[in-house]
Amino acid sequence: MATFELDPRLEADTFPLADLPLCRALLMNDARYPWVVLVPRVASVSEVFELSQEEQAQLWQEATQLGAAMKEAFQGDKLNIATLGNVVSQLHIHLVVRYTDDASWPAPVWGNGTPKPYELAQQGERREQLLAQIEGLSL
Amino acid sequence: MATFELDPRLEADTFPLADLPLCRALLMNDARYPWVVLVPRVASVSEVFELSQEEQAQLWQEATQLGAAMKEAFQGDKLNIATLGNVVSQLHIHLVVRYTDDASWPAPVWGNGTPKPYELAQQGERREQLLAQIEGLSL
Repeated sequence: MATFELDPRLEADTFPLADLPLCRALLMNDARYPWVVLVPRVASVSEVFELSQEEQAQLWQEATQLGAAMKEAFQGDKLNIATLGNVVSQLHIHLVVRYTDDASWPAPVWGNGTPKPYELAQQGERREQLLAQIEGLSL
Repeated sequence: MATFELDPRLEADTFPLADLPLCRALLMNDARYPWVVLVPRVASVSEVFELSQEEQAQLWQEATQLGAAMKEAFQGDKLNIATLGNVVSQLHIHLVVRYTDDASWPAPVWGNGTPKPYELAQQGERREQLLAQIEGLSL
C-alpha cells in the first residue's frame, strides 16, 4: 500500500504547521495573505471525490472550521476556499483570508503578482497565530 | 424572516438548471468550460461557515457529487471547486471542469480572458447533459 508523501513543490512553497485528523496543514510562503494549504494524508489522490465518504466529510470540516477561525483571527473581509490542482495534482485545499485592499483583490490569488516570501520573524509570528487557531478547533 | 433571492449579477451571468436539496444549480454562460455554480437557497449568507452544520455537509455533498459527475460526463482532466465571493458576496460555489488544453490552463478561470457566451443550441445541449447528471445524483 502506497504511503502518503507530500508533493515536492508543495513542500518547497510552504512551511509545515500541524497535522489535523485527516490533513497536513501548511503555511504558504507568501506573506501577502494569511494562506494555509490542507493536504489529506492519503496516498495518490487528486480529486475530493476519490476520498471515502468519511474522508470527504472530514476534509470539508477541517477546511471550513480552520477557514472560519483564520478569517476571524486575521480579521479578513472574505475567505476563499478552493481546490484547483491544475499545477500540483496531489489533492490540496487552499484557505486564503482576503482583504478588500490586498495585493490581488478582487481577483483570485493564484498566479497574480509575485509571492512575497516571509521574513523569519514574521513567519514565526504567523505560524504561532495559526497554531493557536488550530489548537482551538474541535475536529 | 428574509427569503432567498438570487444575486442579480449571478442571475445575469448564468442560466438556471435545477434546484438540488440545498442549492440552486446554475450554468455559467461561458462556453469555454463546463461550469456550474451552486447557490445555497438560504438568505443573507456569504461564508460556508455561516450555514448550519447540516447545511454545510449538504453543500459539500452537492458540490462533490455533482463535480464528480461533471468531470466524468465531460471527460475532464481536473475538477476545480472553489468558493471565492470577492465580487459577488452571496455564497456560491464554482464547479469547473478543466482540460489541459483549455483557454486558461493551468491558471484559474476567473478573470482570465473573455467569457464566450453560449449559442442557443449549444446552451440547450449542455443544459440537457447537466440535467441528466443532476438527475443521477443521490442527494
